[in-house]
Amino acid sequence: MQKVSSLSELGFADDVHRALFRPIHQAAPPSPTSRRTKISVIGAGNVGMAIAQTILTQDLTDELALVDAKPDKLRGEMLDLQHAAAFLPRTRILASTDYDVTADSDLCIITAGARQIPGETRIDLLQRNLTLFKEIVPPLARHSPSALLLVVSNPVDVLTYIAWKLSGFPPNRVIGSGTNLDSSRFRFLLADHLEVNAQDVQAYMVGEHGDSSVALWSSISVGGVPVLGQLASDDNKAAVVMEQGVLERIRKAVVDSAYEVIRLKGYTSWAIGYSVASLARSLLRDQHRIHPISLLAAGFYGIPSDRKVFLSLPAQLGRSGVLTVANVHLTDEEAARLRHSAATLWELQQKLDV
Amino acid sequence: MQKVSSLSELGFADDVHRALFRPIHQAAPPSPTSRRTKISVIGAGNVGMAIAQTILTQDLTDELALVDAKPDKLRGEMLDLQHAAAFLPRTRILASTDYDVTADSDLCIITAGARQIPGETRIDLLQRNLTLFKEIVPPLARHSPSALLLVVSNPVDVLTYIAWKLSGFPPNRVIGSGTNLDSSRFRFLLADHLEVNAQDVQAYMVGEHGDSSVALWSSISVGGVPVLGQLASDDNKAAVVMEQGVLERIRKAVVDSAYEVIRLKGYTSWAIGYSVASLARSLLRDQHRIHPISLLAAGFYGIPSDRKVFLSLPAQLGRSGVLTVANVHLTDEEAARLRHSAATLWELQQKLDV
Amino acid sequence: MQKVSSLSELGFADDVHRALFRPIHQAAPPSPTSRRTKISVIGAGNVGMAIAQTILTQDLTDELALVDAKPDKLRGEMLDLQHAAAFLPRTRILASTDYDVTADSDLCIITAGARQIPGETRIDLLQRNLTLFKEIVPPLARHSPSALLLVVSNPVDVLTYIAWKLSGFPPNRVIGSGTNLDSSRFRFLLADHLEVNAQDVQAYMVGEHGDSSVALWSSISVGGVPVLGQLASDDNKAAVVMEQGVLERIRKAVVDSAYEVIRLKGYTSWAIGYSVASLARSLLRDQHRIHPISLLAAGFYGIPSDRKVFLSLPAQLGRSGVLTVANVHLTDEEAARLRHSAATLWELQQKLDV
Amino acid sequence: MQKVSSLSELGFADDVHRALFRPIHQAAPPSPTSRRTKISVIGAGNVGMAIAQTILTQDLTDELALVDAKPDKLRGEMLDLQHAAAFLPRTRILASTDYDVTADSDLCIITAGARQIPGETRIDLLQRNLTLFKEIVPPLARHSPSALLLVVSNPVDVLTYIAWKLSGFPPNRVIGSGTNLDSSRFRFLLADHLEVNAQDVQAYMVGEHGDSSVALWSSISVGGVPVLGQLASDDNKAAVVMEQGVLERIRKAVVDSAYEVIRLKGYTSWAIGYSVASLARSLLRDQHRIHPISLLAAGFYGIPSDRKVFLSLPAQLGRSGVLTVANVHLTDEEAARLRHSAATLWELQQKLDV
Repeated sequence: MQKVSSLSELGFADDVHRALFRPIHQAAPPSPTSRRTKISVIGAGNVGMAIAQTILTQDLTDELALVDAKPDKLRGEMLDLQHAAAFLPRTRILASTDYDVTADSDLCIITAGARQIPGETRIDLLQRNLTLFKEIVPPLARHSPSALLLVVSNPVDVLTYIAWKLSGFPPNRVIGSGTNLDSSRFRFLLADHLEVNAQDVQAYMVGEHGDSSVALWSSISVGGVPVLGQLASDDNKAAVVMEQGVLERIRKAVVDSAYEVIRLKGYTSWAIGYSVASLARSLLRDQHRIHPISLLAAGFYGIPSDRKVFLSLPAQLGRSGVLTVANVHLTDEEAARLRHSAATLWELQQKLDV
Repeated sequence: MQKVSSLSELGFADDVHRALFRPIHQAAPPSPTSRRTKISVIGAGNVGMAIAQTILTQDLTDELALVDAKPDKLRGEMLDLQHAAAFLPRTRILASTDYDVTADSDLCIITAGARQIPGETRIDLLQRNLTLFKEIVPPLARHSPSALLLVVSNPVDVLTYIAWKLSGFPPNRVIGSGTNLDSSRFRFLLADHLEVNAQDVQAYMVGEHGDSSVALWSSISVGGVPVLGQLASDDNKAAVVMEQGVLERIRKAVVDSAYEVIRLKGYTSWAIGYSVASLARSLLRDQHRIHPISLLAAGFYGIPSDRKVFLSLPAQLGRSGVLTVANVHLTDEEAARLRHSAATLWELQQKLDV
Repeated sequence: MQKVSSLSELGFADDVHRALFRPIHQAAPPSPTSRRTKISVIGAGNVGMAIAQTILTQDLTDELALVDAKPDKLRGEMLDLQHAAAFLPRTRILASTDYDVTADSDLCIITAGARQIPGETRIDLLQRNLTLFKEIVPPLARHSPSALLLVVSNPVDVLTYIAWKLSGFPPNRVIGSGTNLDSSRFRFLLADHLEVNAQDVQAYMVGEHGDSSVALWSSISVGGVPVLGQLASDDNKAAVVMEQGVLERIRKAVVDSAYEVIRLKGYTSWAIGYSVASLARSLLRDQHRIHPISLLAAGFYGIPSDRKVFLSLPAQLGRSGVLTVANVHLTDEEAARLRHSAATLWELQQKLDV
Repeated sequence: MQKVSSLSELGFADDVHRALFRPIHQAAPPSPTSRRTKISVIGAGNVGMAIAQTILTQDLTDELALVDAKPDKLRGEMLDLQHAAAFLPRTRILASTDYDVTADSDLCIITAGARQIPGETRIDLLQRNLTLFKEIVPPLARHSPSALLLVVSNPVDVLTYIAWKLSGFPPNRVIGSGTNLDSSRFRFLLADHLEVNAQDVQAYMVGEHGDSSVALWSSISVGGVPVLGQLASDDNKAAVVMEQGVLERIRKAVVDSAYEVIRLKGYTSWAIGYSVASLARSLLRDQHRIHPISLLAAGFYGIPSDRKVFLSLPAQLGRSGVLTVANVHLTDEEAARLRHSAATLWELQQKLDV
């Protein structure tokens, strides 16, 4: 099967454009300040493509660049998106195995990552991911020195730290998707149970993405009504809910729901696609919205200032990345778990040659 | 790994809802006429899921039901979509291996289909698909007797005919995605070459979806300017373009571009997702827009009225399905190719036990 | 100047449609269950038109009917909206001085109202509005017996009560825009001060729309962080904020901001347009979102069950209107103010001949 | 009634922000290349505000600046838009009587204009508008030297010429809304008659906006089917349609439909709002879409190259303004009318002291 050629190669007259359109006289070129928005997605797997496609559908960028090590898969994905041109606003879609294609991005989203080989230790896997990121991050940073970096690959907290170190970027311009999606799953479970709109449910998972995440029970509110407070004030029904075992089981259910999707369909894609598109909008359109994402957590909640670890905390996102960190209340136990995660990550990072 | 349970099973107090909300007195139930929009997608493979996800992102329905024969894959896809609740308008998402779940759909989209086994003849494959459709279409029609049926599975034209026969529906309520996506690919190739917005390019592929499709050269216009006419009137440049070999090479390139995506990434998904979502919008929101889709073509362009074959023609779509067929001009050769496709399909259909 | 005629009257061939399109054979009519969404707006003044235009831009309905007593103004507004057809999804736009045009609406929005004549007492004005509503509500209810009624005219709480009585509808299907917009103004002032996205600010004004509204201080949260609680726990800074005089000044500023817009531009339009469009979406798309709107408040917060008054409380809205009322915490003083408003309205209503 | 004060003035603690949020360490400021999109609208009348509101609803900009000579009206409109913050994506909305507020705009839309005084001649009115534009355009150009200028004020063609001269901008960066809306009205009338979606109807009004505009009959197509061609080929029905008197009556009806709206409601607003928002999207999002707009027409269709007049022609719009002019076919008579308009405008311009 032949490669599909451009119309020029097929003999379509090059002067059709000249026959259809005439130039305007004395036209000036676009001014250098009239930049267009550009997003690059590194990794054209299920996660990267769900992100890319959601970004396109939601019309968040003027230019989209895809990078992947596999040229065939990459070109197939690019063509598949381009073929939808008649159904979408005009977006320039580029793809290359070369990082040149990402030049002048406003936002670079990294979804590439090594998969665990059976029998491999966590640190060995991480070492391989570090090697991979050494190939990805420096060229990204070189081609787009003012970009925001958003890491989606797992383990997201350590890899965001690695991306930060390798990029040399200020910390407000490097974030990880962290517990943004975990929080959405948490909100869905609560909304589904209460038959309310998930957008009216406020609830945060913070800390380390994955098994050690921390559910902030005091943060749960529905339509602005704090749930646990309401229960406490409402006779004694709260007793059942507040029972610590129940809360921990729910937290675990949220964490497990990601594993369940992987077990059932082999990977997760749609929800992470929407989650990351939502971050992209808050960042690039300067929305000042608050999302729980992985950021440089040193100095917060008793984590020593010299422990440069990335953990998820609710933060306000805008055009320059992280604007501020929301001052949510953590119980002593919650803060202790956060510091424990910080210590574990810190130890792990010492073993890496970043 | 345990199955994620509902909050109730985890011990979350059932009376939380009662503590958070109070009923309104003397409330009346919703009136039976206040129906919500419901779309069902049959087949949770790459095509079905790209369609389902695009429909969700574009907020085209109040309820989405997924049906597939594989319960695990199906539940995984449902959960993955549901986890995005906090990022989307509220849509009820259901999934089941049982067609009950599709009850009272406004639109049923069939993407399920048997894949070719190496060595299998075309007619054997079709026979297997017929067997499959006998399991799909009658229960769909029974559960949603007023629904529109939209067939995406390939070979789309014969399968749309089969769906029509098995459903017992009037022909305006049964269509196939046909050459809607081929036409978009055609428009993209032209727009890309001419550096214009693909939405300003008008161009139709009609007839049989696939190798025998017909590109309507006289239909090509850019911003309302007929391209070939313009070239003809513009000195003699047109000579190059009009050369029949070039046009045929371009038509083949459009057809091949689908094969190329399949060869490169293994399947097509994004573009067909956008294409079908666009049809869903025109149908359910009664848009009266014109799309080239597979419809009962008997009686058009010299196809005998008793040859009940489905072929793509530009048609106006609305809430009751196909409203009218656009009277596009076909050259004698184009009409002949259409009739030839009709004859081939007719012959094929005689061999099937529908 | 002549009235613009239809193309038929101008001599445009009636058979153009026949030349351009051909009917499909054996087509069945649309099924009676395939209803389209219809919204009617009563009153084509600044408020009614801002609502109608926002509903169109946000693509919330398939059919829009406008009713006003002034035929010229009405026809001018209808044409002005219709002329935008090429820039919008297809929506059928109707207008008439006759309520026939509203038949089978899903939602009727009443913005018509008598304006105060200098020297007129409040009760005289209300009496005139009652007379007006007797001309509006019964025909609306007759032509759309299953519709939801949404009253925007002022004084909104009494007029919603009147609309409820005159319609004979169950209370869950009759609401007033109430303090939905006041709450938005409250959220904007807080968001602007705190440099956060107003969508991350939760804050309710409840009770009577206007001077006697109640600001729920304990409901204010930013990104899920309760503001006053946070201040209280954060050393003693809260002292300043909690000072009752400050809070009351802010509440008054919110109320005054409506008056300020009226003083400056003569009326309010844009914000009420967005506010009502947001309610229309929650209702018709069954969003289950929580909005503070005017509803039958008898039986809540100590208001006697036989006092049929409408006041704003945060309520969950869906396809059948008010689904539930959120159980927000009111201080004793706040509840007392609510009951006082209820008593005043009740007294007023006794003087009306509904 | 007091002016509504900021929360600070009302005593709301300034340190609330500090209590709610914590800064991130070592944060770098936004890079100078990370510009946000900014649109300025000059003139806060019915047209200017309909444009501003539609731009907001469609989320086309990150910052919106309003300028008007009347400070009260201006502040009222700004507040009315700001109060909708909770229902819209975050957009910074500014307003001032001083052009400082427009600094660094990407697009400046001029809607201000003097109204005809009874008895005033056309040239006197134009002279007054020239005086007005001398106050508007130079400061706009100075504060945003790279902006695109879009003139909506009437008579649009001469005023676009004046804006071009006063700005010193290259001609591709100065356009007038011209016949973009006339074309939409044309398309609506045809779509309404044919019961098709206006977005499937292609039809251009070109030339001078207003009574002397030229309807391009050969450009009319529906779903890509050229209407007149189809009629001609379809027996002899076309005879009726092609009759010159009918076509001219239809053209006049399109022109009159604007006057009719003005006569009925006093002004036009909604359609021009959507029309200009559509141009803003094509320009700022680099859509390369084709719109009939007023551009420097010297050198086209036999208009002498030294006659610097602005007339509407279908042009491709993108981030740098006019990209190319579409080569539509004009009959000899149509071209003659275009040249006649050019001559009339040229003569008029000679009398102006630009």
